[in-house]
Amino acid sequence: MQTLLLNSDDVAENARLSELIPAIEDAFAAYERGDAQMPPKSYIDLPQYNGDFRSMPAYLDAGDWDAAGIKWVNVHPDNPKKDLPTVLGTMVYSDPETAVPLAIMDGTELTMQRTGAAAAVATDHLAVEDASSMGIVGAGVQAYTQLEAIAEIRPIREVVISDLDDERVERFVSQFEDRFDVSAGSIEEAASCDVLSTVTPVEDPIVSREAVGEHTHINAMGADAEGKHEIADEVLLDSKLVIDDHAQTTHSGEINVPYNEGTLTDDDIHAAIGEIVVGEREGRTPEDGLTVFDSTGLAIQDVAAAHVVYEHADENDNGYPFDLLGLN
Amino acid sequence: MQTLLLNSDDVAENARLSELIPAIEDAFAAYERGDAQMPPKSYIDLPQYNGDFRSMPAYLDAGDWDAAGIKWVNVHPDNPKKDLPTVLGTMVYSDPETAVPLAIMDGTELTMQRTGAAAAVATDHLAVEDASSMGIVGAGVQAYTQLEAIAEIRPIREVVISDLDDERVERFVSQFEDRFDVSAGSIEEAASCDVLSTVTPVEDPIVSREAVGEHTHINAMGADAEGKHEIADEVLLDSKLVIDDHAQTTHSGEINVPYNEGTLTDDDIHAAIGEIVVGEREGRTPEDGLTVFDSTGLAIQDVAAAHVVYEHADENDNGYPFDLLGLN
Repeated sequence: MQTLLLNSDDVAENARLSELIPAIEDAFAAYERGDAQMPPKSYIDLPQYNGDFRSMPAYLDAGDWDAAGIKWVNVHPDNPKKDLPTVLGTMVYSDPETAVPLAIMDGTELTMQRTGAAAAVATDHLAVEDASSMGIVGAGVQAYTQLEAIAEIRPIREVVISDLDDERVERFVSQFEDRFDVSAGSIEEAASCDVLSTVTPVEDPIVSREAVGEHTHINAMGADAEGKHEIADEVLLDSKLVIDDHAQTTHSGEINVPYNEGTLTDDDIHAAIGEIVVGEREGRTPEDGLTVFDSTGLAIQDVAAAHVVYEHADENDNGYPFDLLGLN
Repeated sequence: MQTLLLNSDDVAENARLSELIPAIEDAFAAYERGDAQMPPKSYIDLPQYNGDFRSMPAYLDAGDWDAAGIKWVNVHPDNPKKDLPTVLGTMVYSDPETAVPLAIMDGTELTMQRTGAAAAVATDHLAVEDASSMGIVGAGVQAYTQLEAIAEIRPIREVVISDLDDERVERFVSQFEDRFDVSAGSIEEAASCDVLSTVTPVEDPIVSREAVGEHTHINAMGADAEGKHEIADEVLLDSKLVIDDHAQTTHSGEINVPYNEGTLTDDDIHAAIGEIVVGEREGRTPEDGLTVFDSTGLAIQDVAAAHVVYEHADENDNGYPFDLLGLN
């Protein structure tokens, strides 16, 4: 009985977008249908280290396949001083039928991949069909999978990357300049594109109502804690607003600040992404202008992504098989 | 940056009882002092597979050391039909300061080791000093670590093992006959010893008031779910009764049935083991006869045990170092 160990490279290599995006869509649908279990994230707060741990267990039944697992992840903002990432993750992926741990994989890369795929699912339902320009605000690690995933479902040619850190912008441009017409630009230039993804940790909105295009679809990916807020309230209120999960977005998503101030209410929320995926609510219609997807990241996304990664890695003999249980 | 992978053999080899027992005692003390964090276990129920998953995250600060981690564990009663254990566990052990996953280890062996060590801590505070005889009811995997751990803190010479399955009894006897005067016996013979550990999954008490000795200390280890009950209520009511955790024992420990029927109340509970460890309540006194420890198993025990296992394995170059994070 072997458990497959998959490091960050293995995860990146086996998170095939052509299967990952539909798997994430399946996960949103399963959650909407009630075919998923996702206990609330539980937190361990360690103020003495300025950090916390979160456990994210989940199960989902997508019909053709089901999957179970847990991601153990943290936020330690002082880590970069020690040359470590702020967020590290470890995913245990288990067979729901027997609980055998099929794989243990790097949860940091997995998070980036499933977050990109979630933005792609939302963009597919909410952006104009012929979207060819994409802006990204924030040139950190998440920016890469945003572009990769969204280019999978829309004919993106022109990319505007915006970040205060020139070195990060340069790295992003050189990564993609062979495949896209990619250039550094202002937040306003990024926000006027057909699709905009924001992946910053800011608490004061940086995307104004004037900056966004007439029919821009915005993936608000950055907010993951109380107080975080990337997009001006006017944009949120003027758009068809879609969330991943009501409890998580109102607590720590892009809408958490205006929602808790009462500026934005449940009446301003058009739908959960799962409702659109299963066809219960509409995505973009010809009358729509701005659209926004508020993504906090759900444990079912991790489990669905782990499923895709494991199946491919197993097929291709990637990773390192390890007899963790010692049952033989 | 390497994560150390430790399989079941590595865990067994590095769970040194001489350090594991004090570490578990430290964990009970930290919990009592409020220097531990242990969010409630969260469950994923899968009736379609007759199974469930449980996530058990914890942090504890023992003063000299601290530790964080999560155990992902299941109960799948149909597994033995597929030649798999009912319970499988995977433990991720992390550095609290940076969240780096220091080790990933087999949580099944870890559970057995930390459960034996918890019984030893309780036995040390509650059994007579010169306890030389030990009975064990239930000759499954947990029986082995009960004897190993308790023999570490009391001069056990005579052992009575009781189980309906002769093959399991034979296996247990042959494992220990070189070191102890060990024989098969009835439940009554086991229960009359100085120390008794019960490690069965029964729902109808099998240890009667008449069977137990005058000063027997009982470790009631088996009950881990609503309805389970190994020890007659008269024994529980006539003894100095110690629990590991009020919420867990009243919900799913040995006392859950009489507690929820109202036969046994909070007035019948002498102390939590942590209160005894920190000196807030007394352990055995010369006046005491029967004593009982109701153990359900706490996430802080897993984290403390993982700490001991990791430190030893790392020192001795045991296990397989794996670059899970791919940070280099």
